[in-house]
Amino acid sequence: MPAFKTVALIGIGLIGSSLARVMRDRKLADRIVISTRSAETLKRAEELGLGDAYETDPAKAVVDADLIIVSVPVGASGAVAEAIAPGLKPGAILTDVGSTKASVIQQMTPHVPEGVHFIAGHPIAGTEKSGPDAGFATLFDNRWCILTPAADADPAAMEKLSRFWSACGSKVDVMDPQHHDMVLAIVSHLPHIIAYNIVGTADDLEAVTKSEVIKYSASGFRDFTRLAASDPTMWRDVCLHNRDAILEMLSRFMEDLSSLQRAIRWGDGDKLFDLFTRTRAVRKSIVEAGQEVDLPDFGRPAAHPVKP
Amino acid sequence: MPAFKTVALIGIGLIGSSLARVMRDRKLADRIVISTRSAETLKRAEELGLGDAYETDPAKAVVDADLIIVSVPVGASGAVAEAIAPGLKPGAILTDVGSTKASVIQQMTPHVPEGVHFIAGHPIAGTEKSGPDAGFATLFDNRWCILTPAADADPAAMEKLSRFWSACGSKVDVMDPQHHDMVLAIVSHLPHIIAYNIVGTADDLEAVTKSEVIKYSASGFRDFTRLAASDPTMWRDVCLHNRDAILEMLSRFMEDLSSLQRAIRWGDGDKLFDLFTRTRAVRKSIVEAGQEVDLPDFGRPAAHPVKP
Repeated sequence: MPAFKTVALIGIGLIGSSLARVMRDRKLADRIVISTRSAETLKRAEELGLGDAYETDPAKAVVDADLIIVSVPVGASGAVAEAIAPGLKPGAILTDVGSTKASVIQQMTPHVPEGVHFIAGHPIAGTEKSGPDAGFATLFDNRWCILTPAADADPAAMEKLSRFWSACGSKVDVMDPQHHDMVLAIVSHLPHIIAYNIVGTADDLEAVTKSEVIKYSASGFRDFTRLAASDPTMWRDVCLHNRDAILEMLSRFMEDLSSLQRAIRWGDGDKLFDLFTRTRAVRKSIVEAGQEVDLPDFGRPAAHPVKP
Repeated sequence: MPAFKTVALIGIGLIGSSLARVMRDRKLADRIVISTRSAETLKRAEELGLGDAYETDPAKAVVDADLIIVSVPVGASGAVAEAIAPGLKPGAILTDVGSTKASVIQQMTPHVPEGVHFIAGHPIAGTEKSGPDAGFATLFDNRWCILTPAADADPAAMEKLSRFWSACGSKVDVMDPQHHDMVLAIVSHLPHIIAYNIVGTADDLEAVTKSEVIKYSASGFRDFTRLAASDPTMWRDVCLHNRDAILEMLSRFMEDLSSLQRAIRWGDGDKLFDLFTRTRAVRKSIVEAGQEVDLPDFGRPAAHPVKP
């Protein structure tokens, strides 16, 4: 029996459409109502058959919903909460999937009506692709979903939401929003920013042609282009809404990089060797934790030769 | 008909053992002689049946060789050239596969006997794995191999070496060693250094536990751990032997990162959005050039759940 009769998905990109697919495949809801700001995207969701009903007005989409999942760029969270507030029914559970939590909670909470259970969340899953076509039902399998409830959150609502994410394939963790934002700053936000930055640096070089960067990218550079191909709106918002934690991690990263730069300048081979050895162990731990494949080159298939 | 009667492989790690495999599979040599410094590695190469003869003394290994391929960390190039010099026969072609070229040429050239054709080279191919077990015959397929011959290099030797790499599956480019070192500094050396650095920064954090870094790594961080799991000796040597080009690229990268840091601090969303949009196009070009797969998440298979 589905845990929820009606689920409303506000936003139907990679995460929203993956939720729609896993809910349908595993029968987690009787009815899925989809709303998103762009008429074109909503039409595409309908073409893909992702839901049972489609609404341009988010307040209408949530009217009968027992669970509302907001999957929009974090900068839009406040406006979405304000827009859906009139439609939310008492006892409904409202959650989100945003990559920053303190800011989302601050933006959404003032708009949440009495009797609605708002519990912020963040599934640690995704790819560099975006839009309703990019989602797939197994996206959350074996991934963590972090919930960041307020101290007075309703235990029954927490229990229902946790079960929902488990049914989607996730393992559920609970932490406070500030800690979430600091952890994600290092494991996700800094890697994306660094990737965007290095791809930008390479793209700007005048002494090395763009075609050289492209041709020889299999020597390392191409790995970074994956994260740097992520959704620009989503990542602009992450940077703007987790500023302090990101600046803290950036400053540690730059301090360490200055020290590495100095080791290279002064030919300190032992220091380089020590770091390069220590980092190997980290990957091993990730593989052992079931969060990475133990295959060379990510098990990446060979790229296909270009047709002439 | 094989292009070479006898090929000597000095060093039998990822690259050397991939060469041994592709030469055997595509019949590119009548006889493969293998030599490497570590007795244990040489024994392993023999167990794997990678060659026809195995020599602990590199000078003996090269005695009959028409082609000698040195595949060792670039810091060992000079010592290897000195060690094999007495055994090299006139007319033989000597090459290498090192990731830096000016330094290797400077180290090896003084030891090359009259009548031996030394042409430095660098196949742009690899994985993060190392050792004789890590190699595979298709490693060079659809990848570039850069040759950096001296101005007075023998055209016939160049032709033979180019054909050899083509037969291994590579496309061959020719450039001068300094330009090679600058191009590789941005497409390969900087990405590795940045990856090592960020993994080190995360490993050092006291406010975020190591298990949190591991658990949530699928959100971006794990991508960097692949390059940061590369061979420490090889990468120490690259840093020490391409110092100037690496420092130049590092300094550009840090300058750009400071500018990005400032945009984050001051909430300059337009600047962030512009960069994050521009970088998307770079990945698209790499895919179009046949140097990357157009699959989400590198087509990486899902990691397996941990056994309890």
